[in-house]
Amino acid sequence: MDLTRPRFVLFGDSITEQSFRPGGWGAALANSYARKADIIVRGYGGYNTRWALFLLNHIFQLNCNDTPAVTTIFFGANDAVILGRTSEKQHVPVEEYKQNLRKIVHHLKECSPTMLVILITPPPVDEDGRNEYARSLYGDKARELPERTNEMTGIYASNCVELAQELSLPCVDMWSRMQETVGWQKKFLSDGLHLTPEGNDAVFKEVGRALKNAGLSPEALPSDFPHHSQIDGKLPGKAFEASEHTD
Amino acid sequence: MDLTRPRFVLFGDSITEQSFRPGGWGAALANSYARKADIIVRGYGGYNTRWALFLLNHIFQLNCNDTPAVTTIFFGANDAVILGRTSEKQHVPVEEYKQNLRKIVHHLKECSPTMLVILITPPPVDEDGRNEYARSLYGDKARELPERTNEMTGIYASNCVELAQELSLPCVDMWSRMQETVGWQKKFLSDGLHLTPEGNDAVFKEVGRALKNAGLSPEALPSDFPHHSQIDGKLPGKAFEASEHTD
Repeated sequence: MDLTRPRFVLFGDSITEQSFRPGGWGAALANSYARKADIIVRGYGGYNTRWALFLLNHIFQLNCNDTPAVTTIFFGANDAVILGRTSEKQHVPVEEYKQNLRKIVHHLKECSPTMLVILITPPPVDEDGRNEYARSLYGDKARELPERTNEMTGIYASNCVELAQELSLPCVDMWSRMQETVGWQKKFLSDGLHLTPEGNDAVFKEVGRALKNAGLSPEALPSDFPHHSQIDGKLPGKAFEASEHTD
Repeated sequence: MDLTRPRFVLFGDSITEQSFRPGGWGAALANSYARKADIIVRGYGGYNTRWALFLLNHIFQLNCNDTPAVTTIFFGANDAVILGRTSEKQHVPVEEYKQNLRKIVHHLKECSPTMLVILITPPPVDEDGRNEYARSLYGDKARELPERTNEMTGIYASNCVELAQELSLPCVDMWSRMQETVGWQKKFLSDGLHLTPEGNDAVFKEVGRALKNAGLSPEALPSDFPHHSQIDGKLPGKAFEASEHTD
């Protein structure tokens, strides 16, 4: 394969794994960077940052010659599950969450000091939505208390924002950003946790803004190979010679 | 980057380039192969097979260690434009189209003899749809005769099918397949040429069928890294040791 197109890796949990579903933020990025960058998904449903550390050396190998130009790190929704409730297996204490994120960033910067690393906070949690979802699955047997709360997830989100400031990294604070919109609970979240198409669009727009601020908007990147309008029907080779010169 | 996940490359014209728009067949493939394969788009709007040849050595480099496991070749919609009408610059005679496809396949097989190469014929053309589209852009100044006809595109499609038979390759004959559905003109085509979400879904399903026939359905491929349900909350490392053994 050619290595000329930059790669943007989306590293995260289910919200990243599902980002190519219809309306997904990953697919929207792939579409807006058509002929400019490859969008590579490395999303692992249910994973927290503690488990993500086991993947680092596999996904982001040191001393390889095709490190990503950009990596988004989008964990926290699972780290923030509440101890003593269902799903507690996924819980990671907030200090460790922050430390794990720091380790991930350090590893990526070791792979490539010039890599743009974007931290994304978990989205807010709609506890009513979580309860409805649990009842839709388990009826009367559904657990009484939601396994995640918006308040607790907010603590993780603010630790993510803090870390980004400490490391001078761009941060997309979806927890705060989404809650600025009235009705965010149903508008952006399908089951109180995962994203609706509108929620995906909000992530796409915010990540797009972070990329633009770093000089990596689609408009700022070269398109690979000549546009068809630049190709001479009789002497097509000329357009491709020119593109080789600018490679 | 890790090279463990197989790569599926989508090589073609605008119908491939646009395949990550909402409802797009490329995004649908990426979603259905989540954690199984990377879908890499190499679509070039307006390109015919003659121009595609200039890209081959760049996109599919010989002697590289990360050749795609699968490549779809989806050209012909531009080769088939009619001489003497608008867009004639894109026209490629049908014999040359077939020969160019053959060259592309040979190059890919030289990259990797085990690569699965899937030929896709151009979709049918709705001439009324093309006329309406031209009038929507140019009003009374629109050209009189459509730059593509369904009949002519059908000749290219049948040459593509023939070549696939000669080379024993799977072929997705969208030209024939779509016309089996009553109302294909508006159901599958947005402007008489490009795909609606339903048209994209039809391509997704047919390409998915070709992949399945070759033993490469999502169910047949391993998922990368353990499912979260297999991870022991107290001893998470165990699940990852096991996954290293099966690498």
